[in-house]
Amino acid sequence: MGSWMKELAELHAKHVLTPWSVQKRASGPMIVRGEGSFLYDSEGNRYLDLSAGLVAVNLGHGKEQVVQAIQQQAARLCYASPAFFHDQRALLAQGLSQSAPWPEGARTFFTTGGAEANEDAIKMARMITGRQKVLAFYRSFHGSTSGAGTLTGEFRRFAGEPGIPGVVHFWGPYLYRSPFFSENEAEESDRALRHLDLVLLHEDPTRVAAIVLEPVVGSNGVLVPPKGYLARVRELCNRHGILLVFDEVMTGFGRLGASFGAIRLGTTPDMITFAKGVTSAYVPLGGVLVREGLAATFDAKPLWCGHTYSGHPLAVAAGMGALIAYRDEGLFDRARLIEEWLWRGLRNLEKESPLIGEVRGLGAFFGLELVRDRETREPLSLWHKPLSPEILWLQQQLLGRGVYAFFKHNVMLIAPPLTITEEELQDGLEQLGETLRRLWEEPSFHLGRI
Amino acid sequence: MGSWMKELAELHAKHVLTPWSVQKRASGPMIVRGEGSFLYDSEGNRYLDLSAGLVAVNLGHGKEQVVQAIQQQAARLCYASPAFFHDQRALLAQGLSQSAPWPEGARTFFTTGGAEANEDAIKMARMITGRQKVLAFYRSFHGSTSGAGTLTGEFRRFAGEPGIPGVVHFWGPYLYRSPFFSENEAEESDRALRHLDLVLLHEDPTRVAAIVLEPVVGSNGVLVPPKGYLARVRELCNRHGILLVFDEVMTGFGRLGASFGAIRLGTTPDMITFAKGVTSAYVPLGGVLVREGLAATFDAKPLWCGHTYSGHPLAVAAGMGALIAYRDEGLFDRARLIEEWLWRGLRNLEKESPLIGEVRGLGAFFGLELVRDRETREPLSLWHKPLSPEILWLQQQLLGRGVYAFFKHNVMLIAPPLTITEEELQDGLEQLGETLRRLWEEPSFHLGRI
Repeated sequence: MGSWMKELAELHAKHVLTPWSVQKRASGPMIVRGEGSFLYDSEGNRYLDLSAGLVAVNLGHGKEQVVQAIQQQAARLCYASPAFFHDQRALLAQGLSQSAPWPEGARTFFTTGGAEANEDAIKMARMITGRQKVLAFYRSFHGSTSGAGTLTGEFRRFAGEPGIPGVVHFWGPYLYRSPFFSENEAEESDRALRHLDLVLLHEDPTRVAAIVLEPVVGSNGVLVPPKGYLARVRELCNRHGILLVFDEVMTGFGRLGASFGAIRLGTTPDMITFAKGVTSAYVPLGGVLVREGLAATFDAKPLWCGHTYSGHPLAVAAGMGALIAYRDEGLFDRARLIEEWLWRGLRNLEKESPLIGEVRGLGAFFGLELVRDRETREPLSLWHKPLSPEILWLQQQLLGRGVYAFFKHNVMLIAPPLTITEEELQDGLEQLGETLRRLWEEPSFHLGRI
Repeated sequence: MGSWMKELAELHAKHVLTPWSVQKRASGPMIVRGEGSFLYDSEGNRYLDLSAGLVAVNLGHGKEQVVQAIQQQAARLCYASPAFFHDQRALLAQGLSQSAPWPEGARTFFTTGGAEANEDAIKMARMITGRQKVLAFYRSFHGSTSGAGTLTGEFRRFAGEPGIPGVVHFWGPYLYRSPFFSENEAEESDRALRHLDLVLLHEDPTRVAAIVLEPVVGSNGVLVPPKGYLARVRELCNRHGILLVFDEVMTGFGRLGASFGAIRLGTTPDMITFAKGVTSAYVPLGGVLVREGLAATFDAKPLWCGHTYSGHPLAVAAGMGALIAYRDEGLFDRARLIEEWLWRGLRNLEKESPLIGEVRGLGAFFGLELVRDRETREPLSLWHKPLSPEILWLQQQLLGRGVYAFFKHNVMLIAPPLTITEEELQDGLEQLGETLRRLWEEPSFHLGRI
């Protein structure tokens, strides 16, 4: 490493607090450039971005339409108070309404990311319904601010506890480790619904403002709901006057092969929260899409939501550039093609590697659940514990082979840029296969001391 | 208005939810360009940005060093997972440590804005101290996510209530409407401290993790603390092992005539939360500066904070461009000069207009507290109510005269870009004087039906 870059790495370790980490362990390549499906470090090493950052860079790196939109808007106007109207904000909100699943149209409240969007969705749901309780999945991530963190159904919420009152967690379907002891998909779906019905009964459905869920659960394992599940959650919401909020921070903007997951999955919520893909993460932006019939509530009553950066001009211009790129290049649909490549490639890996317990996914969003033993299904890294040495080994080996992927405990998230080529993906999966093979062949692995 | 711009305005009204507003009243100029101290709308009208957006655009609009930093970084790399190191992030964190008030140095946890920064500061204070309670001012704004909203001591928190447990509000000094019935500054300072001491005693100071406050209270009235107050709050914190957190989202980055308000005010906290000025609001960015001695806690224990956009490459590059501009042009200090101009200009307005109850401020951060009557001090717009017709009239008249300013109830916030010229400021204050004169001369004003 050049001495200047070495110095920068030392400065980074000295002055930057890295998320979700023990700081003295924080280190890693210094990424200085991105292009298409690849990141480049200061040494010129190349990494295939197999998780699109944190399931965010849907357009790949350096997408011209977005870079130019940012550069042009930066020269014109970066920021003005959100009390003013702004041209790109109007256009993006129109585009989002057109891309959303509601024939009645929608309005957008803009935020800087998914956590704020979920916070604001809760507030809006309470303002609209006059009810207090909100239901969310165990095994979910909705952000780490206090409200979004309380919705979150995994260990990253504990540091913020006790969180906000009125949030109740329930169990969603997850056949591979069924919380309902089911033996097949139909049973899992049915029991998950009976469970939700029971929770609602015991919480009083007339006190429930909203059910907030990821239509495909993201970082908590890429859990695709069984057929019929979401439609029947929608029916329960209708029956009880409960708003259905989809957190589409990961599933939106083409990830599942449609503008929004709601469209691919055929179930229409009342609000959609989004972030990440809206600008391909190029500029922080998020928001809440509210169907027109509900948004009109705030024509007469004040909307008690606000942020300095709501509808930030540079961010919405990047969003508009991204929307144009998605549409011009047909990228909202392209994940259906990537899905075929992924099923084929990952089924092959599954055959070859005993470490793969299950392959799950939809569109360009897949999870590999890694286990020590296919029979016992013992996870390769325990939930609610730091990453196991084996997963750290896998991450390092993959980086050494030029592949970056995001792991959550024992699940590897495969969510490439929607622009990835079949060859790039095949190369990445080959490296992955080779790495899994090496781990399995490592004698120290079977002695439990890698 | 051109028909295209008219169409955009209609799209905006139809599809964008505007913060803190009754939507059917949302309207306003379509701002399409910014340069120096001015914003320009689609009709070519010019507005002096007398509040720097929402006390944010400290470098004025179109500052070359920042625009270029954004344009260059956009072409190189907009985003990578925060698990990777990044060159601009290392440099900015070093620069922030150098600009901060601690000889021991500091580390930064980056967020996208002030609300997340305050959320993370609470979490860190609890992790570091093992204590739960947090104290904050009534009359304060710390953001609108659930945790930051609970800290907030004004009406924008109500929609998020009940918020997180463990937050206790106390009263800060505000001589003009003293909560302690004081008659002079020394008495106000002394009573405010005795009040805080009493609150601590009744909450048990050994259970208090942190006191979070704006060193000069911002949107809740530009309240400058009396001499000695902050130093004695610091002593109380030392005595009880409580962390002192300054929310410098508005007061940081030159607003008070120093890099941080802590330096201008001569009191050193344990953490500083920041946003806005760090990039002059050009790209959403915020963070928590933690003094080294505390940050080192997370060398051994995990830091349970994280966001997708933590240390966002484009945002930190903009921050680095801004830091260079502040330093090269001596802008951290320039507010001391603007302060002289403002005292002179606003004292003159105060003499001329009976509507001005009090002028308060420090650096380039002033508040004009407007009243119906100087004797009774009746506010021109009631706290905890929508803006009064008179304030709306003032806002509209000012806009018509090419001046934008941010009002909070009966307080007008004067916080121009730090690059403003004396002539630009004088022109703005002249328009303001003329507008206040017209309101006073308006017969319907005195009949209470403007």
